[in-house]
Amino acid sequence: MHILGCGSALPTLKHNASSQIVEIRGKLFMIDCGEGTQIALRRSHIAFARLSTVFLSHLHGDHCLGMIGMISTFGLLGRTQPLRIFAPAEFEPMLRSQLEMFCHNLEYEVEFHAVDTTKQTVIYEDKSLTVETIPLEHRVPCCGYLFREKPSLPHIRREMIDFYQIPVSQINNIKNGADWTTSDGEIIANSRLVRPAEPPRSYAYCSDTRYMPTLHEIVKNVNVLYHESTYANDQLHNAEKYFHTTAEQAAMVARDAQVGQLFLGHYSARYENEEILLDEARKIFAESHLSDEKMVIDVK
Amino acid sequence: MHILGCGSALPTLKHNASSQIVEIRGKLFMIDCGEGTQIALRRSHIAFARLSTVFLSHLHGDHCLGMIGMISTFGLLGRTQPLRIFAPAEFEPMLRSQLEMFCHNLEYEVEFHAVDTTKQTVIYEDKSLTVETIPLEHRVPCCGYLFREKPSLPHIRREMIDFYQIPVSQINNIKNGADWTTSDGEIIANSRLVRPAEPPRSYAYCSDTRYMPTLHEIVKNVNVLYHESTYANDQLHNAEKYFHTTAEQAAMVARDAQVGQLFLGHYSARYENEEILLDEARKIFAESHLSDEKMVIDVK
Repeated sequence: MHILGCGSALPTLKHNASSQIVEIRGKLFMIDCGEGTQIALRRSHIAFARLSTVFLSHLHGDHCLGMIGMISTFGLLGRTQPLRIFAPAEFEPMLRSQLEMFCHNLEYEVEFHAVDTTKQTVIYEDKSLTVETIPLEHRVPCCGYLFREKPSLPHIRREMIDFYQIPVSQINNIKNGADWTTSDGEIIANSRLVRPAEPPRSYAYCSDTRYMPTLHEIVKNVNVLYHESTYANDQLHNAEKYFHTTAEQAAMVARDAQVGQLFLGHYSARYENEEILLDEARKIFAESHLSDEKMVIDVK
Repeated sequence: MHILGCGSALPTLKHNASSQIVEIRGKLFMIDCGEGTQIALRRSHIAFARLSTVFLSHLHGDHCLGMIGMISTFGLLGRTQPLRIFAPAEFEPMLRSQLEMFCHNLEYEVEFHAVDTTKQTVIYEDKSLTVETIPLEHRVPCCGYLFREKPSLPHIRREMIDFYQIPVSQINNIKNGADWTTSDGEIIANSRLVRPAEPPRSYAYCSDTRYMPTLHEIVKNVNVLYHESTYANDQLHNAEKYFHTTAEQAAMVARDAQVGQLFLGHYSARYENEEILLDEARKIFAESHLSDEKMVIDVK
């Protein structure tokens, strides 16, 4: 998970507008795309030709104004494979008129998929993962995204394969659970031939939202939770007024969901130093961390 | 004149998309506003509350995609005075729908003024200056902008005022050309009481355009000419194909117009080092210079 931007509505010289890349088994997915994301992407040296899909949480400028510039740049760089965009339905007419004005010679397709932000649904699936919406409560329709890796096949125990002289042609069968019968008729149980794969991983992105006391049910046990923490406790009234979350509240979600790690982000521009957010979060949930631009988080 | 961005369509880590600030007698005017301009503006430490007017040359993304984010940010920062935008007419419906989607609680007015890019006309005037359109030839309707300072009042010769004991109440009359009659009836000619003001200055912005052999007639004798120079001579075919200019051609305009200084910009991303552009320009026009981000050019 690559953090491209973890600031909030007011851009600063320290934090970019919201954007992240989720990288899994060689595939790239983007979540949110604020102004300047294409520059942050370039700075990150991520091989962005592999970016297939963008998920937008909601239609506030700091989460989506970078889309059209990025689409245009991909076109100039010769992209040919389609780019999928998942976003609230109201984004499509805006996107189409921008495409017409700024990208009329695009040589790849921009596929738009409207997202119902009010329901928890699987909206994307491939061989490696599923992506579900997480209904959030913000001033406009908004959802988070929950990435769940599919189970991997187990690892072959090379020494057992060699010992029983099992031919390469059988490896896939064994990975898929087959036992092995030797020429003597002895049956070698599959469990002796493989080591279990790492358990599948999960990552939840929740921004922007007010504190949702039941959110932990949806993000239960995820390995990593990114949860907006626009404010510290001193600004609780603003969190309530603007439908944002304090770091402490984000930590309460993480604690109640028993996640592996919590990453805070979407910081208000008022904090010169976000340590105050971290301190308040860690009092509730020890495995709290600050996001920062250029940070690469290994989800496990 | 503050350079905020002098790159071209493909953003790089070196150059921002097009944007400049013209600062004159305490007023700020912006020309073009590519993606990320609000960040460059913030980085420049220019007191942007004084920005009253934005002039957009044409509707390619690298010249206008930063508008909506900047408008939104000004709103968040509490702006109340109107912001004028001069741009080709087709920009207005796009801008209005973006304002509705991303800035519905704006507490200041965004005044749109459609610009006819095909005619050289004065489109803006105040006490200090006029701004004229410069018709350019690009793939979409496009114009440059010519800033002409109005003449300043002459400087008072303090020693003469003291000598003749001229009261403060008369200073403005004298600045505006009045002679002075002493109590003895002697007439002191105005020319002995004042020193002429500095001659009014002028600045022309020409981007994007193909080489226009008659452009020099419009930008005749300006103090500073900013002219796009997307390519060096090795890419003359691309300059012709995409309606851009080579550095040499930009220098030909500068030479034929007998301008004071030429600043090159809108560099193609292919040039790691723009010295090749400068070298080619200087062979034609010695007072050629490279623009660069954060550069502040004193027009005189």
